[in-house]
Amino acid sequence: MKKTIAVLPGDGIGPEVTDAAVKVLQSIAMRYGHTFHLKHAVIGGEAVDQFDNPLPQQTIEVCEASDAILLGAVGGTKWDNNPAHLRPEKGLLNIRKHFDLFANIRPVKAIPALLASSPLKEEVAKDVDMVIVRELTSGLYFGEPKRRSEKSAVDTLVYTREEIERIVNQAFEIARTRRGKVTSVDKANVLETSKLWREVVEERKAAYPDIEVEHMLVDSAAMKLITDPRTFDVVVTENMFGDILSDEASVITGSLGMLPSASVRSDGFGLYEPVHGSAPDIAGQNKANPSAAILSAAMMLKHSFGLHSEAAAIEQAVMGVLEDGYCTGDLAGSGKRVVSTEQYVTKVIEELERE
Amino acid sequence: MKKTIAVLPGDGIGPEVTDAAVKVLQSIAMRYGHTFHLKHAVIGGEAVDQFDNPLPQQTIEVCEASDAILLGAVGGTKWDNNPAHLRPEKGLLNIRKHFDLFANIRPVKAIPALLASSPLKEEVAKDVDMVIVRELTSGLYFGEPKRRSEKSAVDTLVYTREEIERIVNQAFEIARTRRGKVTSVDKANVLETSKLWREVVEERKAAYPDIEVEHMLVDSAAMKLITDPRTFDVVVTENMFGDILSDEASVITGSLGMLPSASVRSDGFGLYEPVHGSAPDIAGQNKANPSAAILSAAMMLKHSFGLHSEAAAIEQAVMGVLEDGYCTGDLAGSGKRVVSTEQYVTKVIEELERE
Ligand SMILES: CC(C)[C@H](C(=O)O)[C@@H](O)C(=O)O
Ligand SMILES: CC(C)[C@H](C(=O)O)[C@@H](O)C(=O)O
Repeated sequence: MKKTIAVLPGDGIGPEVTDAAVKVLQSIAMRYGHTFHLKHAVIGGEAVDQFDNPLPQQTIEVCEASDAILLGAVGGTKWDNNPAHLRPEKGLLNIRKHFDLFANIRPVKAIPALLASSPLKEEVAKDVDMVIVRELTSGLYFGEPKRRSEKSAVDTLVYTREEIERIVNQAFEIARTRRGKVTSVDKANVLETSKLWREVVEERKAAYPDIEVEHMLVDSAAMKLITDPRTFDVVVTENMFGDILSDEASVITGSLGMLPSASVRSDGFGLYEPVHGSAPDIAGQNKANPSAAILSAAMMLKHSFGLHSEAAAIEQAVMGVLEDGYCTGDLAGSGKRVVSTEQYVTKVIEELERE
Repeated sequence: MKKTIAVLPGDGIGPEVTDAAVKVLQSIAMRYGHTFHLKHAVIGGEAVDQFDNPLPQQTIEVCEASDAILLGAVGGTKWDNNPAHLRPEKGLLNIRKHFDLFANIRPVKAIPALLASSPLKEEVAKDVDMVIVRELTSGLYFGEPKRRSEKSAVDTLVYTREEIERIVNQAFEIARTRRGKVTSVDKANVLETSKLWREVVEERKAAYPDIEVEHMLVDSAAMKLITDPRTFDVVVTENMFGDILSDEASVITGSLGMLPSASVRSDGFGLYEPVHGSAPDIAGQNKANPSAAILSAAMMLKHSFGLHSEAAAIEQAVMGVLEDGYCTGDLAGSGKRVVSTEQYVTKVIEELERE
């Protein structure tokens, strides 16, 4: 298989972790006889510095000419006081919108070897295995009017039926490949958009008689994620709720540095990036955990290219390294051997070659 | 002191827990020489059943003629399919708006005797002591337009500078009586209302040079509440974020059944209610935990009536009962003696009389 991948390293530890993921992709290409053309481009703070634009036109063109996008991370205190259109995050918001990447998919799965780093009791966090499906290109993030004056400010939460339908369908499809349960999160006792959301979920349910559907208010969901996280299989929700709940969920298993994400549209094109941020405090020190970026590359292989065995091989290799007791500094603990980013990648590639 | 208190028991376990709180108030009145006139009125599902209105005019009149409101809980599956204006929660939203109760105050404090019921590791949850201050009468809950058609729906997130100023002031004032730190939570990298919010916090800061101020994005806050809850002293945020984060925070210490809340305006008038819901599944069984309602009554004494020693006496009595090992079924565990709601109240009153 021949594929072109746009690689956008971004800021902070972004370059280190995408480098790691690229090495793993190259090893996979060699082993399975694929060709991955990698085209690097800038985004975020780096792009602001070079082009006064967090998502320059040439980056868009590189992505348009690619089959998928691998992103590191954007942001850093350096750009925190920039005006909105010159902030790194704007690059992320723009690329999502430009490519209509409406479905943000974030798996959260407990890794037995890492439960000790969870803030939750082990008996609460163990066996957690959920996927959060967040609508990513509508809602409060993009609704108009969105403006402020001296005396007041307004943002608009708007959803069309079609926007809800496509994300809900996505969640149902994912549930079919898993335990067959969808929890739709809304605030239907207060919001009109949530009432429409709930109605659409009820309608779409008919097409998925094999799937169990549950509605949950966002405030209850924020509690249940902590008190009873194993209750969730697939969680589907709108953009702002998804931002909050997916970050909340990311800390349950104690392995934030391990979590990948995909932001996709219906034709399989997608952007893949670690859930963690750019961590400027440890950037350039060869100590970032590259697992989330590596596992994001695995999601790309599976979701955008249909390469299921290759993706599974990567996941297995990462788990193998962890089970052997190796980890980066973020997961240090008794019985663990802390290695550098580069050493960790080497271990993952060795595992891959052994499989 | 002579005060009139409107008592709105509401639905589910609401009547049992307000009964308990009323008994404690009566004991305080006797012991300290106060007179509390208690006027009962209906709200929520009960009011829908009796008057086709979750907040009937006669209830508003009772509250207007009172110095404070004690509320139990509203809601139940029985009314879940009612149209919006006949749903129990609408009574709550209406009473907040009618009385301009713009500041929702929720203390979350770890109780050593109960940490075993926390989903968090004890070393994470212990010594947590924060107050969440949520704006309660504006934002997405009330902004216009708020409507839906066949094809789409819209809600509006709008804030005026004054609305932000008064809730931020409230948070600063509360911080002064505590550890002197305010964490303001927003989504200033995406929302215009959050940018205004952040600007107002920065302005108000000048009037409170003794207070340390920190800004945090809502998604980070959702993580930090779980990974590092001790970092928070006073958290101030807008209505929808506050709904989500305060429910998330309520589970940290494992003692949801213990958490009181106040919804107040600037002149001291307020509504006091447990954080927990109406729990229809255990209603009428004399097993609900009345602590949250009792501690809400204590908040009323302190906040609306300035009766600080009386409030402290109640808090101490509840802690005394727990330390003696008594608790209701929700907190059952090794070394605990489970008692009924009524027995628990008797114990609290005995403690009060012993103090
Ligand atoms: C950087 C920010 C705009 C972004 C968001 O809110 O969507 C981030 O928090 C995320 O979840 O990817
Ligand atoms: C019942 C509901 C409308 C209410 C809210 O969202 O404000 C509740 O969740 C609360 O937090 O008091």
